[in-house]
Amino acid sequence: MRMFRNDYSEGAAPQVLAALVATNDEQCVGYTEGDPHCERARELIRAACGREDVAVEFAIGGTSTNLVCVNGLLRDWEGVICTPDAHINVHETGAVAATGRSVLPTRDEDGFLSVAEAERVWRFQTGTGRHMTRPAMIYISNTTELGGVWSLSRFDAICDWAASHGLKVFVDGARMASALTSPAAEGLTLEHLAARADAFYLGGTKNGMLFGEAVVISDPGLRDAFPYLIKERGGLMAKGRLLGVQFEALFTPDADGDLPYWKLARNANERAFRLRDELVSLGFEAYGEAPSNQQFFAFEPEVAQRFAEAAGCEVFQELPDGRLLTRFVCSWATTNDDVSELVAFARSL
Amino acid sequence: MRMFRNDYSEGAAPQVLAALVATNDEQCVGYTEGDPHCERARELIRAACGREDVAVEFAIGGTSTNLVCVNGLLRDWEGVICTPDAHINVHETGAVAATGRSVLPTRDEDGFLSVAEAERVWRFQTGTGRHMTRPAMIYISNTTELGGVWSLSRFDAICDWAASHGLKVFVDGARMASALTSPAAEGLTLEHLAARADAFYLGGTKNGMLFGEAVVISDPGLRDAFPYLIKERGGLMAKGRLLGVQFEALFTPDADGDLPYWKLARNANERAFRLRDELVSLGFEAYGEAPSNQQFFAFEPEVAQRFAEAAGCEVFQELPDGRLLTRFVCSWATTNDDVSELVAFARSL
Amino acid sequence: MRMFRNDYSEGAAPQVLAALVATNDEQCVGYTEGDPHCERARELIRAACGREDVAVEFAIGGTSTNLVCVNGLLRDWEGVICTPDAHINVHETGAVAATGRSVLPTRDEDGFLSVAEAERVWRFQTGTGRHMTRPAMIYISNTTELGGVWSLSRFDAICDWAASHGLKVFVDGARMASALTSPAAEGLTLEHLAARADAFYLGGTKNGMLFGEAVVISDPGLRDAFPYLIKERGGLMAKGRLLGVQFEALFTPDADGDLPYWKLARNANERAFRLRDELVSLGFEAYGEAPSNQQFFAFEPEVAQRFAEAAGCEVFQELPDGRLLTRFVCSWATTNDDVSELVAFARSL
Amino acid sequence: MRMFRNDYSEGAAPQVLAALVATNDEQCVGYTEGDPHCERARELIRAACGREDVAVEFAIGGTSTNLVCVNGLLRDWEGVICTPDAHINVHETGAVAATGRSVLPTRDEDGFLSVAEAERVWRFQTGTGRHMTRPAMIYISNTTELGGVWSLSRFDAICDWAASHGLKVFVDGARMASALTSPAAEGLTLEHLAARADAFYLGGTKNGMLFGEAVVISDPGLRDAFPYLIKERGGLMAKGRLLGVQFEALFTPDADGDLPYWKLARNANERAFRLRDELVSLGFEAYGEAPSNQQFFAFEPEVAQRFAEAAGCEVFQELPDGRLLTRFVCSWATTNDDVSELVAFARSL
Repeated sequence: MRMFRNDYSEGAAPQVLAALVATNDEQCVGYTEGDPHCERARELIRAACGREDVAVEFAIGGTSTNLVCVNGLLRDWEGVICTPDAHINVHETGAVAATGRSVLPTRDEDGFLSVAEAERVWRFQTGTGRHMTRPAMIYISNTTELGGVWSLSRFDAICDWAASHGLKVFVDGARMASALTSPAAEGLTLEHLAARADAFYLGGTKNGMLFGEAVVISDPGLRDAFPYLIKERGGLMAKGRLLGVQFEALFTPDADGDLPYWKLARNANERAFRLRDELVSLGFEAYGEAPSNQQFFAFEPEVAQRFAEAAGCEVFQELPDGRLLTRFVCSWATTNDDVSELVAFARSL
Repeated sequence: MRMFRNDYSEGAAPQVLAALVATNDEQCVGYTEGDPHCERARELIRAACGREDVAVEFAIGGTSTNLVCVNGLLRDWEGVICTPDAHINVHETGAVAATGRSVLPTRDEDGFLSVAEAERVWRFQTGTGRHMTRPAMIYISNTTELGGVWSLSRFDAICDWAASHGLKVFVDGARMASALTSPAAEGLTLEHLAARADAFYLGGTKNGMLFGEAVVISDPGLRDAFPYLIKERGGLMAKGRLLGVQFEALFTPDADGDLPYWKLARNANERAFRLRDELVSLGFEAYGEAPSNQQFFAFEPEVAQRFAEAAGCEVFQELPDGRLLTRFVCSWATTNDDVSELVAFARSL
Repeated sequence: MRMFRNDYSEGAAPQVLAALVATNDEQCVGYTEGDPHCERARELIRAACGREDVAVEFAIGGTSTNLVCVNGLLRDWEGVICTPDAHINVHETGAVAATGRSVLPTRDEDGFLSVAEAERVWRFQTGTGRHMTRPAMIYISNTTELGGVWSLSRFDAICDWAASHGLKVFVDGARMASALTSPAAEGLTLEHLAARADAFYLGGTKNGMLFGEAVVISDPGLRDAFPYLIKERGGLMAKGRLLGVQFEALFTPDADGDLPYWKLARNANERAFRLRDELVSLGFEAYGEAPSNQQFFAFEPEVAQRFAEAAGCEVFQELPDGRLLTRFVCSWATTNDDVSELVAFARSL
Repeated sequence: MRMFRNDYSEGAAPQVLAALVATNDEQCVGYTEGDPHCERARELIRAACGREDVAVEFAIGGTSTNLVCVNGLLRDWEGVICTPDAHINVHETGAVAATGRSVLPTRDEDGFLSVAEAERVWRFQTGTGRHMTRPAMIYISNTTELGGVWSLSRFDAICDWAASHGLKVFVDGARMASALTSPAAEGLTLEHLAARADAFYLGGTKNGMLFGEAVVISDPGLRDAFPYLIKERGGLMAKGRLLGVQFEALFTPDADGDLPYWKLARNANERAFRLRDELVSLGFEAYGEAPSNQQFFAFEPEVAQRFAEAAGCEVFQELPDGRLLTRFVCSWATTNDDVSELVAFARSL
């Protein structure tokens, strides 16, 4: 059975792999600087964002992107407000602190940074002037760690709050394609993101690329900083064109005018929604609202164990009632047959 | 009226100032290396600790000491478990992160690091291997941020837990003299601390010195590291003998065999206990147990405001019921007359 | 005409690309941990090194590898001795300093770290104890920045010196394949490197891979540190198997028992030697001894300019006599026809 | 005999000590924020600088000041150009690198940063864009490491060069009082420094204070940064008033309108000049031009040894001819009798 462990289990989507093979023998200058593929990918992404004035840079993975952006948006003594479950707070081995900056988690429990909690942290941290880390940006991720999707109104509310306090907005978009193609986006578009965020990224690793994230930067300081920081932090790729080739493949419109980047994400989402609906109809209990390509269930330990063995799904944590929070992830590669096979297995339990 | 704002409002205790004046014209080599005063202070402190094999180093202040010790006890990707209100977590402008290390706060709300919470953080942080900051030490402070005092049994419990998990123990002792002379120490002595902690410090700044902390180090790694780190972090004093002269003055036994270091702290504690008892007897409500030289009260805003104006006491935070948590601090310099004057003022409210 | 600009202008060598395509649809766990390709690549590299007890880790590029290894081999206040032209000293945007460590360059001018200069720096830096950065490792690169190749005797001499001073040895092997297949290696083998260096790496990016370096670690401290540091510094690849697949392809012996890794390098070297010989026979002046895949010439400015335009070769610096130091690089992809075309062009000048 | 080892061997000058004693019992708020002594010292220093618009901040020692200022004037990937013997390059245990910034030494051998060498480093470092640390400031020290004094014209030349390249100017003034009172200043005044440098400091530790440096900041970025950075780096003093009291004492004009700060330095200089003249007249060879309170001589090893034993002077390094470079330092505390005693000893050799 296909593993439902995560969305980076396979290699590249067919069109990405084909582009890599087709361009393999070209000679290009390195470091994402000036080769035709990176230049073209930049143009396509700017067009998709509806802004000609943003910088588009490339990175290899999420942690590298996050540490460079957080570092570049903050001065040495400043900090970033985020939820406690934020990737930068728990899953990156202290990468932000390793660049000298501080992470300031709120107490939000649902993966969404709330205005109330952001305000509470802001007040606390600015109460004694220089004796505390000064918050200077917010970090949110779309989708959230729990598969949540930011709606237009929720996003605007936190951006409004940040603007009113002079904080910058950074959006981790490792799964942005899944988020923006979800019905739960309720009007949040790439153009809107590009209009409001100081920086964000469009994840490729979890949406059909071998690796790669495209960072869209409005903030003038980070714009100057990024090219140096990505090199200084070891994230600049010698054969930079690999990043360009892959994003070019996904942001070049298909015959129907749609982008492969969105199509791959829609496939992942649709498989995930079907998986969810079918398991629920079998009587399993979905956990939280996850209108994206990750689906969470609360299983009895034995059931969780059997799903993990059969479908490679990940057991996240123990819930207070002893059940285990279990995650299924669909990707561009997940087929309807794969979901059917999982459902059949679920039925057999 | 004397300010009850903090215990570093005045200059030096008389015996400290006298020692500085008496030795002013001596010529000494610098950097706490090899001058007779630092050497003598080291001997006296080792004797007070009952261990000849510990290293005794000197630093100028608490933040400098904390950042050097936390940095030196951890490797780059490791973190320190502490309470959320820990000085290193909130009051040092991200000093630990600025050295590249991570702070891992628990949810303890009373200032004491609990075994249960330390265990919870440990489990969480070690759950996914290298993807998370690995805890490698605990940080506790004695007294705590809320004026609490570690008892022998409580201290042994957390040390036992740390030992069983291979974590190092560091004790912030900015107010160690007040803690160890408190009845609430219940048997926790300097000798015991020196026997169990990998490193700790004896605060001078808040106990009658112009400045200065004496760091007692058992951990072999930190022992090698400290002399380099304190220089690299800008904390090494050129006229290092100033630290030696002051600690020598406070750790040279008086005629009665007692140390001025303890005597100054006892004065601070006793004044604080009387202040507390008198205010309570006037009907004011003490907040929490603070058997040390800091006393906390919950006042109506107007009352807090009047105390703050008259006695310089600090308003810490708003309590859920709208009252203001207010702190009075006594020091070696606080006299019984000072307390009487404050009580008279309180009575007039 | 083929560009002779560098050895990372093309994509992947055919056998590497074929392996990536062949394995594309497999589902693997991530992060180079436990997927069959990384495991197999580790085994193959250990076998080629003749040591079962070394750790083999993977990184995406040279700067990432260098900063993790230098950071992990040093404590905070320690430094690394290297030549002034060392990649870590000049070409990595301060990546080592960004991790808090210091680079201590000698005055060696030929790209080889000499015992005499290493000794001079060592003495200078240890002269005043903790007031100076303490050297704790040496960094050499093979090939050197100027295309030089370490011979067995030269390598042993610097390792002996390092051992006698308690310094660790790290070898940057971005072009290790070219170095070890050069006649100038004079007996320096992969097995010997693995026996003497505390850590080194086998470059893939410049020898036919899309990207990737394999780090061979003997030092126990770095062994523990690397998995955490590579994550913390943003260098851990989600689809880690890509690194395994590529190294597996190059370290699986061909029918003749030879490794593709060496064969690709031999091609690059042989093309470079022919290029050199032919240009010299045309009267151009080779600069220095570069018995590897990089060749340096001293050209009149106009000549340098024309070569740069036609063959994309890089002008390194102005020499004291006004001529321009110009570099030609051959790769696994350079054919004899490519060299012939360049020579024909040179003849036409 | 008085030691001529350095200018921080004694405690405080009489007027400084008297001020500390006189103010000892005052209660002040902490951290150099808002106590009357720090405020008054700031006013006096601004007046002496002839600029009302500069920020005046306080630090405890030179390394702390240097690391905060260099960090605060640079972004993460930028570097500071300085001479190879610069304190930040060799004598601070990598303190700048420990904050993540890079030191870019020239090849100047006389302690003065030259325009030619600064230009060479600038060109080299900016040659390949983001692949190298970008120079963004220059660091000079007055006096230099070899006791040299910047003249007005030399200072203006390097400032002009820096301005033309958009680099900031920072002056380490650990011995600024000696420099500005030297005849070799040739018109370089405190007012001029304050008009041209982006930041500099007035050293107290080496000119009669127990400790303390006053940092004068024009650069708007550093102005915002300093209060946070000094705390984050552990350099903020709890009893901050100690810094204010001491600078207040030295910058309050005497009855004759002159500042004690200059008078103490003139004493040191004049004793040093006499020492130099007398030793030269005895046939000893002065080394270099050191028109300040440090004097360097080249002695036969045996002679150097005897001076070191008798007068505590420091042997700096071995000269190429086998003689030893030896340093005598005079301070505010050095008397004419002290010099006479040394000269008598020299005569006896």
